[in-house]
Amino acid sequence: MEHRMIYTMVILIKDLAQHKNETVKIRGWVFNVRSSGKIIFLQVRDGSGFVQAIVEEKSLRSLHGDKAEAIWDSASKITLETSVELIGTVSEHPKKAGEFELHVSEVKVFQYSPEYTIGKKEHGPDFLLDNRHLWIRSERQWAILRIRAGIYGYIEEWLKNNGFTRFDSPILTPSACEGTTTLFGIDYFDLGQAFLSQSGQLYLEAAIGSLGRVYDFGPVFRAEKSKTRRHLTEFWMMDAEAAFVEHEENMQIQEKLVSYVVDKILKEYKFELSLVERDVAPLEKIKSPFYRMTHKEAVKKLQELGSSIEEGSDLGADDETILTNTYDKPIFIEKYPSDVKAFYMKRDPKDPSVVLCNDLLAPEGYGEIFGGSQREDNYDELVKRLKEHNLKTEDFQWYLDTRKFGSVPHSGFGIGLERLVAWICGLKHVRETIPFPRMITRKTP
Amino acid sequence: MEHRMIYTMVILIKDLAQHKNETVKIRGWVFNVRSSGKIIFLQVRDGSGFVQAIVEEKSLRSLHGDKAEAIWDSASKITLETSVELIGTVSEHPKKAGEFELHVSEVKVFQYSPEYTIGKKEHGPDFLLDNRHLWIRSERQWAILRIRAGIYGYIEEWLKNNGFTRFDSPILTPSACEGTTTLFGIDYFDLGQAFLSQSGQLYLEAAIGSLGRVYDFGPVFRAEKSKTRRHLTEFWMMDAEAAFVEHEENMQIQEKLVSYVVDKILKEYKFELSLVERDVAPLEKIKSPFYRMTHKEAVKKLQELGSSIEEGSDLGADDETILTNTYDKPIFIEKYPSDVKAFYMKRDPKDPSVVLCNDLLAPEGYGEIFGGSQREDNYDELVKRLKEHNLKTEDFQWYLDTRKFGSVPHSGFGIGLERLVAWICGLKHVRETIPFPRMITRKTP
Repeated sequence: MEHRMIYTMVILIKDLAQHKNETVKIRGWVFNVRSSGKIIFLQVRDGSGFVQAIVEEKSLRSLHGDKAEAIWDSASKITLETSVELIGTVSEHPKKAGEFELHVSEVKVFQYSPEYTIGKKEHGPDFLLDNRHLWIRSERQWAILRIRAGIYGYIEEWLKNNGFTRFDSPILTPSACEGTTTLFGIDYFDLGQAFLSQSGQLYLEAAIGSLGRVYDFGPVFRAEKSKTRRHLTEFWMMDAEAAFVEHEENMQIQEKLVSYVVDKILKEYKFELSLVERDVAPLEKIKSPFYRMTHKEAVKKLQELGSSIEEGSDLGADDETILTNTYDKPIFIEKYPSDVKAFYMKRDPKDPSVVLCNDLLAPEGYGEIFGGSQREDNYDELVKRLKEHNLKTEDFQWYLDTRKFGSVPHSGFGIGLERLVAWICGLKHVRETIPFPRMITRKTP
Repeated sequence: MEHRMIYTMVILIKDLAQHKNETVKIRGWVFNVRSSGKIIFLQVRDGSGFVQAIVEEKSLRSLHGDKAEAIWDSASKITLETSVELIGTVSEHPKKAGEFELHVSEVKVFQYSPEYTIGKKEHGPDFLLDNRHLWIRSERQWAILRIRAGIYGYIEEWLKNNGFTRFDSPILTPSACEGTTTLFGIDYFDLGQAFLSQSGQLYLEAAIGSLGRVYDFGPVFRAEKSKTRRHLTEFWMMDAEAAFVEHEENMQIQEKLVSYVVDKILKEYKFELSLVERDVAPLEKIKSPFYRMTHKEAVKKLQELGSSIEEGSDLGADDETILTNTYDKPIFIEKYPSDVKAFYMKRDPKDPSVVLCNDLLAPEGYGEIFGGSQREDNYDELVKRLKEHNLKTEDFQWYLDTRKFGSVPHSGFGIGLERLVAWICGLKHVRETIPFPRMITRKTP
C-alpha cells in the first residue's frame, strides 16, 4: 500500500476528466463534508478546481480487509479545511455528464483543522476582511482572483501583440509635482522626501523616445480620504503610451483592447464567471463600435436624464452611473473642458477650450475604467500650461526635454485594474477585486 | 504629393524586410547623420529597430523637379534626435544580405532638435543618470530595456505554463515584522505607520490555500545604505509559492525556469544581445543539471580557493564571486546553517542545524539571483522560530493561521529581476537594468 501511495501519479483536479476510470492521487483541502453513516462525501479543492470525493465503508472493506477501519476512521474525522491526499478512481458523475468524481481508496491527512474561522454563517465585510487570508479560499473569491489574473494577462497579451514593450516606471518619485494632498511621502536617506507614484505616465512619455510604444503595470497609491465602493489606497494601474498616435487612434486602441479582454474572459473563464454569478449577456454585447459623445453632448444628455450637472463641469460618479445605466455598451466621452483636466493634455486645434482626451465608461452603472488623451507636444504650449496650473517648471525640466529633443505627436491611456475587474465580475465593491485591499480604514492583514 | 504622404502605409522599421522594393512610410528619430555633399545618410530608429535612410539630391530632383530643393533643404538641416517622417523605397543593402535601407523620396520633420545633450563624447555615470530620460534612447540602453521586458515576459510565461496564478501581494504592509532598519515607513491616515514591502512571500503562503500555485512580480523596497554595484533602493522581485512542493522539487522548478528564460532570450533577442556585446557562449551552457553543493561543501571549496570564510557563516558577496568564477553553470547552494537564514525556513529533518533552503548563484562572478526554501509548516515549530528570532507572534497571527487550518508542505523562491538582467546582459552594475534607478544617492529624474 505504501508503495502505491508513493507511485500513483499526482494530478490536478482540473485534469481529472483526462483520467476517466484511472487510479490517481490528488492533494488539497476539504471545503465541505457530508456523511450518510456509511458514505462520506468530501468536497475537495486544490487551487486548480473542485471535486467531490466519495469514501464508502463497504468498498474500503473489500479493498483493504482489516485495514479498512483505520482508513474509514481517519476519513470520518475530517473537518472543514483539513488538508488531505487522496487516492481513488475517477468516474463520470452518473447523472451529470462531463462532471467527475473520485471514488476514494486511500486517505492521508496532512492536518486536521480545528473549527474553521469562516464557517457557513453569514459574515459582515469587516470580519471577512480581517480574515482575508482565509476568505480568499472561498469559491467566489478564488474565482474573482483567477479572473483578475486572467484580465492582467490578456491586457499584457494584447499590448505585446500590438508592439508595446513593458517599461517599469519608478514608484519612488522625487517631487510632489501636483501637490502633496493625495500623496504618500517617505524620508529618502539624505535627499529629503520621496513620494509614492500615482501614475507612471510622465516616465512613459520619455520612454517612447527609446521604445516607441510602452506600458507599465504596477501598484500606484492615493492618500485620498475617500471611502466609497470605487476607491482603494493601493491599486494596480496599467499606463500605455505610443509615439505617433493621435486622439482618434488612441480611442481605437482602447476599444480594441477592452473588446479583446472581455472576449477572452468570456471564452476562457466561463466557470469562474458562473461562480461569481455574473450575467454574461451584457458582456457579450461588448464589441466595436462603442458609443461616443463629446463632453458637451454628455452634459446635455445627463440634463435630459435629470442630472443637475452644469456645462463646463466634470462628470461626477453619480453622472457616470446615470449615463452608463442608460447605454448597453461602453461609452467614450471625449473632449472635456480643458479647465477640468490635467496640464499635459493637448488642446483641440478646432476648439481650444476643450482637450483631446477621453474617458471610457463601462456600462451597467460602472463608470470610468479607462482615461486617455493626446499629449501636448509643443514645448512652449506645455510651459504655458504648467504655469496656468501653478506647477513649477523646474520640477519638470526632464519632462520638458522630451518636447525639446525630437518631440512627436503621441497619446496614451490608463486602466485601473480593480475597476475593470469589478465590472467584468459584476461586483459592487472594489475591495473584493484585489488580494489584500488597502483602504483608509484598513492596512491589515 | 500631400495625398501620397497621407496614404502611404506607415510601417515599423522591424518589418522593413517584408516590404522589399515597396514604397513605405516610417516615423522616428535620427540618431546619426552623415553627409557627402550630395547624399545624406540618416540613421533612424522608431523603437522597433534601426535603419539607414539615404537622401540623394539627384534622385529627389528626378522625382520632384523644382520642389526637390525644399525637400533637400529640410533634410540637410536634420540634427541628432530630430523627429521625422520619411517616405521611401525599401531595398536590400548591396553588400549585406538581410539588411535593408530606405531610399528616401519625401521628408517631413516634426521637430528639429537643438544640440543634443548626450553627444558623441564619453560621459560619466552621474551625467548619464541625470539624463536617464534621454540616455535610454541609446542603442545599448534600448537593447537592455528590451531584454529586461523579454525576461519579465518569459518568467511569467513559464510560470503560467506550469500552473502558477498571478497574485498581487500588497506593497503597503502593517508592521515592521523584522525591524525597521531597512524599511521605508509612511504615515497611513489614522492607523499609524505602514511600511513598503520587501517581499510578498508571506502573503503568497496564504494564497496557496486558495490558488495552489501563485506568484507575484512587482516593486519592492530596501532602505539599505548599501552603495554597491548590486544594490538598488527600489527593484523588481518575483516571488513564487507552491503547495505540496518540497525542497528537492523546489530546486527543480528554479532550474527549469532559469533554463527556459535563458534559452528564450538567446533565441529571440540575438540582435539585442549583440548590441550589448554579450558573449553568448557562457549562456549557451545554461542547461540542466546545474551544479549542487551544500553550504558545508561550499565553505570547504571556498577555503580551498583562498577565502577566509568560516564554517557556519553566511557567504559574502566576495565568496559568491570567487565561487561563480570557478564554475561554468549556475550553482545551487543548499542547506545553510539555520542561524543565518530566515525564521520561516524548514529545518532539515536529517540535520536540524541546517534549513531546507537554496541560493542559486549565476556563473561568471554574478552570484545570487534566486533564493528559495521549503517553509516550516508545523504550527508549534513556527511559533518557536518566531520567538528564537525575537519576533512578536501577535504580528504573525494571520500568517500562523495558515499553519492552523489545513497546513501543507510547501516551498517557494524569489528572483531579483535586475540581478538576473545584469547577468544575462553581462553588465557590471545593476543601475542600467531598470528604467529609472533609485539608489541611496539618487531619486531623480
